[in-house]
Parts: sequence; C-alpha cells; structure tokens
Amino acid sequence: MGARQREISVSEFFTKNRHLLGFDNPRKALLTCVKEAVDNALDACEEAGILPDVVIKVEVAANGEAAPPASQATRFRITVTDNGPGIVRQQIPPIFAKLLYGSKFHRLRQSRGQQGIGISAAGMYGQLTTGKPVVIVSRTSPRAPAHYFEVQIDTKKNEPRILEKKQIAWEAPRGTQVTLEVEGRYQKGRASVDEYVEQTIIANPHVKLTYLTPEGESKAYRRTFEQLPASPREIKPHPYGIELGMLLRMLQDTTHHTLSGFLSADFSRVSPNVADGICKSAGLSPRARPRDVHGQAAESLYKAIQATKIMAPPTNCLSPIGEPAILSGLYQQIKGEF
Amino acid sequence: MGARQREISVSEFFTKNRHLLGFDNPRKALLTCVKEAVDNALDACEEAGILPDVVIKVEVAANGEAAPPASQATRFRITVTDNGPGIVRQQIPPIFAKLLYGSKFHRLRQSRGQQGIGISAAGMYGQLTTGKPVVIVSRTSPRAPAHYFEVQIDTKKNEPRILEKKQIAWEAPRGTQVTLEVEGRYQKGRASVDEYVEQTIIANPHVKLTYLTPEGESKAYRRTFEQLPASPREIKPHPYGIELGMLLRMLQDTTHHTLSGFLSADFSRVSPNVADGICKSAGLSPRARPRDVHGQAAESLYKAIQATKIMAPPTNCLSPIGEPAILSGLYQQIKGEF
Repeated sequence: MGARQREISVSEFFTKNRHLLGFDNPRKALLTCVKEAVDNALDACEEAGILPDVVIKVEVAANGEAAPPASQATRFRITVTDNGPGIVRQQIPPIFAKLLYGSKFHRLRQSRGQQGIGISAAGMYGQLTTGKPVVIVSRTSPRAPAHYFEVQIDTKKNEPRILEKKQIAWEAPRGTQVTLEVEGRYQKGRASVDEYVEQTIIANPHVKLTYLTPEGESKAYRRTFEQLPASPREIKPHPYGIELGMLLRMLQDTTHHTLSGFLSADFSRVSPNVADGICKSAGLSPRARPRDVHGQAAESLYKAIQATKIMAPPTNCLSPIGEPAILSGLYQQIKGEF
Repeated sequence: MGARQREISVSEFFTKNRHLLGFDNPRKALLTCVKEAVDNALDACEEAGILPDVVIKVEVAANGEAAPPASQATRFRITVTDNGPGIVRQQIPPIFAKLLYGSKFHRLRQSRGQQGIGISAAGMYGQLTTGKPVVIVSRTSPRAPAHYFEVQIDTKKNEPRILEKKQIAWEAPRGTQVTLEVEGRYQKGRASVDEYVEQTIIANPHVKLTYLTPEGESKAYRRTFEQLPASPREIKPHPYGIELGMLLRMLQDTTHHTLSGFLSADFSRVSPNVADGICKSAGLSPRARPRDVHGQAAESLYKAIQATKIMAPPTNCLSPIGEPAILSGLYQQIKGEF
C-alpha cells in the first residue's frame, strides 16, 4: 500500500456512482433532471417572496437527424424557466457546474432541495451522456442585463468550466432559465415526468405552470391560490435530535463561554433552567467551558440530555400546505364530485 | 440567490446522507463497518501476494458501565487485524480519515472495494455516533517499527486530524490492525455479521480467519486452499463500454497524436485496422488530432464505434474463484453429503 494513493474528486465519485443521486436508468434520470430544475426554480421564487411562474419544456433532442417520436427517443432537451430573483453572475458557474455547492445545506430550514448536489449533478449527467454543456440565462432585474452561460464540470477537479459567457437580450425582466440535454426515456405512468408535474400542481396551487411535453402538447395550469406558503423558519437543533458526534463538534464550535450558556443558546427548547438541570444531572459545572467538555464528560452530558424532559421542538419551522391551498390544488387536478 | 452560497465538504454531505453508504440503521451499519475493514485487509494482502491471515473481533463496548449482553448492546468495538504489507506512516491518516482517498478508484481493475470511501466512511460513522477516533496499528516489515495512530475526520474540511501518533512494540512482524467504535446492533440471521463471515470463508478458502463474536465465542476457520487467486489484470476500457462524455474526455486527455493511434492504444480490442475502419465510417481522418475531435465529429465517432463489430473484451481481467477453490470453501462451510 502507499503506491498510487490519491485524492478522488467528488465529481469522479458520483460519475461512477450516479445511481446514488437518482440517475439509475434513462427513465428515472429524465425525471430526476426535471425535478431538480423545478425544485430549484420554486425554492428560488419562494425565498424571494415571488409567486412562481414556471415553464417546463421537454423536447426530443434530434441531434442533426430526423427526430424520433417521443416514446422512441433516447435524448431530450429540458428547459425550465422561472420568474424568480435571478442569480448574480459570479454564482452561476458554481451553482450549475460544481457538486456540493449551495446555500441550503448548512442551514436548518425546510426547503425542497438542500444537498447542493441536485442541479449540478443533473448537469454532470447530461455532460456525461450527451457531451452537452448546461446553458443558463439569468437576470436579476429589468435594469440589469441578462447573462448567458454555457458551463460544464471539470470532473477531475470538481470545478466549473465556462465554455461561453455573454450578455444577451432576454424578454423576461427577471428570472432564470436552465437547459440540460440528457440521455433519457419518456414514458407515461408511475414515476413519470407527467405524473410529477401533476403532483407538483396539487401540492403547489400558488404556482402558475406551463408544461410543454415532448409529444408537442402544451398543458397550462393556472394559479388557483394567490398566496405564497408561509416562509419556513430556520431553527436551532433540538437536543434529542443530535448524535454524540454532533454534540462533541458543537461543544468545540460554540461561541458561548459556559456550558449552561451553550446549552440554552445553541439548542431550541432549552431554557437556562433546563440547561442547569442537564449540567447537574451530568455532574458538570454550568460554568464549565464548553471546549473543556469532551471524552467521558461529554458522554455524561449526552446521557443527561436524553434523560431530561425537554419540550418538543416548535412546529413553526414547518410550512405545511394548509387546507385552503391543498383543496384548491385538488379541485383543479382531480376531477370528481366534491 | 447569491447569499450564503458556499462549498459543502464531502464529509458533511455524507454525514447527512450516510444511508447512501450503507449506514442506514444500526444493524446494517455494524455489518458495513466489519465488511469495509475486512475488504481492505483482504485486498491489501492479495495485492502484496500474501496469503491472508485475518482476525475479526467484535466486542460490546461497555463504555465504563457493566456491559449489556450482545443482543441488547448498542455500541460495539470492531477490530480487524491482517498480516498484509502494512501501510507507510504518511498514508495512514488520509486512508482512514479522509473520504475519497485511495488507490483503487482510478484504475480499471477488479478489487473488493474501489471507491476510496469505505473504511474512512466507517470511521466517520463511528466518530459521529460514539465520538471515538479510529485506532490504527501498522507495520511494514520486521525491521521497521510499528506505528500507532488515533485519527478522526475534520468533517468541515474532509481532512484527517491526528489525535495521537507514536511508535509502539507490536507482536506482529507485519500487517495492519484497525479498531472502530460504533453504534450498532448485533443480530443473527440474514445480512448479519455472522452470515457475512461465513460467506467470506466460502468465497475465500485461501484465507485463514478467526472471528471473535460479541458473545465471546471464538470461531476459527482454517485455510483450506493454499493458493492465492490469480491477480486480476488492469485493462483498458472496451469501446462499447464508454459513454459519449467519457469519450470526449479521453479525446482531450490522450497522449497520442492521431485519432487512429488514440483508438488503438487507449482501448482494448481495437487493432490499427479496426481503428482505421472506425475513422472511415465516422468520416474522420485517421491522422486527425484527437483534441480537435469534438462536437458533431465526436458524436459521429461515437456512433461509428457502436456500429463497428469489435471483439468482446478479454476475460483475464477477471479473477474468478475457480472450481477447486470454491469446492474447498464449500466443503468446509456447508455440511452435507458431497
């Protein structure tokens, strides 16, 4: 051992292990790509407080020859356009062409995607199967120019490679458009793109959505609920929800100077009283420096936390759809006697 | 968008997504940890041409209290010792405490593990669930000292943190011992550690294996086949087995100066004749520079490859167990009338 040991880039790893990210087979891969792009579009709009207006276009990629019918095709071009806040120019290449880069991973807040790997993995899958770059157009305001990018991942380094960038004229005053060309299979039925679109409409009646199918149909779903879902709140971790390893790391990383202060400030539902109780039952001083609590002391602390009665976490960190919204989604989508 | 975008380390990603690596639940996690350590031990021995002599010890980790019975325990210490070539000192920390680091990923050769993520992920799982470091003892020859390391992963950076390193006296003249302390569940039956050990013995009759169970039993399996399996050969990729994206990358990375030379040198089963045939049917010059072949030309090349009849890949890149060896494994393990 020792010979030829070297680092493996995360892009190389997921190139070989793409099934881990939902690219098991061409059919599932097509769905995963559409889903990652739509998830990103909806999250971006909602975070900016904008009622989403999204267009999904899935076309057969003819590739210079006569286009086969959608059911026979093996290559598709997916374009998802939103009216979201747009992306600042410098962030476009890493967001779309670098795995493990994003804003949603490090915060404790509900959102659709959160791993920083969805849309860039979809782009990498496209690059691998069709050799085509991801094409992005984004504009942050009517007063700003629209930026056009073609990017790929340098898989050996997991860094974006910019093939083309320019300012272009774009009809939309604001928003983002992403185009992927991927190997895929278009089928109807369970776990199909069509089913995903219909379910998205039911669960997101505040979205205006247009779906241009690979068979040339245009399906327009109007907005049936004129209100954005309440924004989910970011919360601190609940003491019951962490593992020992996480507790050890938090003890090292905290900015608080006493164990009691750390417990009540860095967790949800831990009052100063509860914090003192935990310290006492762990046999530790509430004034102990968090950084000095490790090894056996940390284990005692961990056990004391599990043994202490602590109020359940607040639920306002969740943003449920709500009855009026889900009903309006169902009325639109499910035909039947209500 | 643009606010708080940042890189996510691969360790952080797999901390949140450990199910992707086989740490779904405590029972499966225990098996995964044992398996990763044993796979590494066997691969190391075989690569060095050493008949493996492996000891697997799984103990209940009492953690300062009275040890519960194995069936009730939630924490285990796993120690796997081999008589392999040992690991040079500098390589010990990254091999055991850095994800995506290894020697087996970049070569096209059969081996048990190959992702550079197995044993270090097991160590990270241990760190997360018990806070304990991975402990390694390794020695490369009777004339060299044995090195003792305690390492953890700095998950924010995916870099090893060395908690302790020293030279120690060790009875073994050569080999590696790794100890992990992890949260787990010990159960019998399907997909248990016991079953894995028995299957390993059947498929690897050239291994002498001792298994010390968490219930205090000692099971000794003698070596029943005195020959190492033939070493698998590293081969070049077969042209049918690559995707367009891979072909594009190989065209850029090759050291060959002509398309025909690239095809016959960088792939298996492509003779200069076959290479010229592929170029011709793609409408490309055999003298073209590989780096200049991209876009539509690369697509034509890819299609020409698929359409050309090419001999199946050689099979000597595989190392099957072989009839005498599998029989000797079966005779030892499966009681019945043969």
